Amino acid sequence: MILNLAGRIDYTLLKPEATEKDIVKLCHEAVKYGFASVCVNPIYLCTAARLLHGTGIAPTTVVGFPLGAVTSETKIQEIITAKAYGAREVDAVINIGRIKSGDWKVVERDAALMVQTAQGCGLKIKIIIETALLNPEEKKRAAELVKQVGADYVKTSTGFFGGVTVQDVIDLKQWVGPAVKIKASGGIKTKQFALELIEAGAERLGTSSGPALIS
Amino acid sequence: MILNLAGRIDYTLLKPEATEKDIVKLCHEAVKYGFASVCVNPIYLCTAARLLHGTGIAPTTVVGFPLGAVTSETKIQEIITAKAYGAREVDAVINIGRIKSGDWKVVERDAALMVQTAQGCGLKIKIIIETALLNPEEKKRAAELVKQVGADYVKTSTGFFGGVTVQDVIDLKQWVGPAVKIKASGGIKTKQFALELIEAGAERLGTSSGPALIS
Repeated sequence: MILNLAGRIDYTLLKPEATEKDIVKLCHEAVKYGFASVCVNPIYLCTAARLLHGTGIAPTTVVGFPLGAVTSETKIQEIITAKAYGAREVDAVINIGRIKSGDWKVVERDAALMVQTAQGCGLKIKIIIETALLNPEEKKRAAELVKQVGADYVKTSTGFFGGVTVQDVIDLKQWVGPAVKIKASGGIKTKQFALELIEAGAERLGTSSGPALIS
Repeated sequence: MILNLAGRIDYTLLKPEATEKDIVKLCHEAVKYGFASVCVNPIYLCTAARLLHGTGIAPTTVVGFPLGAVTSETKIQEIITAKAYGAREVDAVINIGRIKSGDWKVVERDAALMVQTAQGCGLKIKIIIETALLNPEEKKRAAELVKQVGADYVKTSTGFFGGVTVQDVIDLKQWVGPAVKIKASGGIKTKQFALELIEAGAERLGTSSGPALIS
């Protein structure tokens, strides 16, 4: 089977200083190359959804991003707003602070509410666990929790606090099995690294270097 | 007049990996030193509000933080939730992406809605313009806009994309005059720098180095 690398890429631009022109260019390139989705901040979701209409490319936005430190009420509001504004997928940050505090019940409730809201709206949801900020035990428990609450994907990183490693993907694959897909993200800038991450078990790759990866 | 430096400090901890214990320590130190406020992420606002009850120190949280790239609907929801959970002040990020896109009407509407919501709830609002990401013309126009929509403070930085300079405060003072107070933030780690910022016109200082500044 020939690997369709482009069809694995979530083409992403989340810098606060990104302009609407940058987003238009991102969407045009996504269409040109046949990427899986375009991932933008909520203020640009409308623009992306309009430009991607009818292309099969999924408009995607982020929730609780990038700190994961807003209330569950706000995360739910963000998911509902994302649906209303045309998202097909959302990438939502887990409650990192409560993981580091050992308050796993709060982490679980927050994640479960997000999954219930997103899937209830017909959205796919990826939960970002921010591997670079977690120790191995926290990573394992977070991954198991993401599986338990029924998210569609576990995603490694926001890109703001360090990137993904191949070992991260190998570990996640072992912990979540086939029930949850893996999205690798953060610092994916070469085709070589992209292929290693897929080989390790990543279904999707989040990157702002989409065209470079497939040329 | 003797300067009450402690009374100018918003003692701040916004790292995603901060634990509840870190927040408890932050609040205890704020009481000990008599800081103006404690600024924490929304997930810890309840904790801070409970610990600061009756002390006169203002529980503060952030809105649209740190990218400023959530919808106005989400920012409004965050402000209302902040009020419900015990905030007295909110530090809210302007729509940076729309500034960089030149869409000033969108920036103004977003800021005006936040000010209206916060002040309607009885909250003071500081609008963060993220000086490190703006050129001089954008800074001036953003500051004038913050004044025009009636925010209580213009705040320089989130701390995630570079810090404040003394020149930033001098410029802001010139642009907003006495109607809007200035909160300097980002990279304030020494008493010397703190005093320079106050001399330049800063009313408040946001810092995670509170005790170091007043010793």
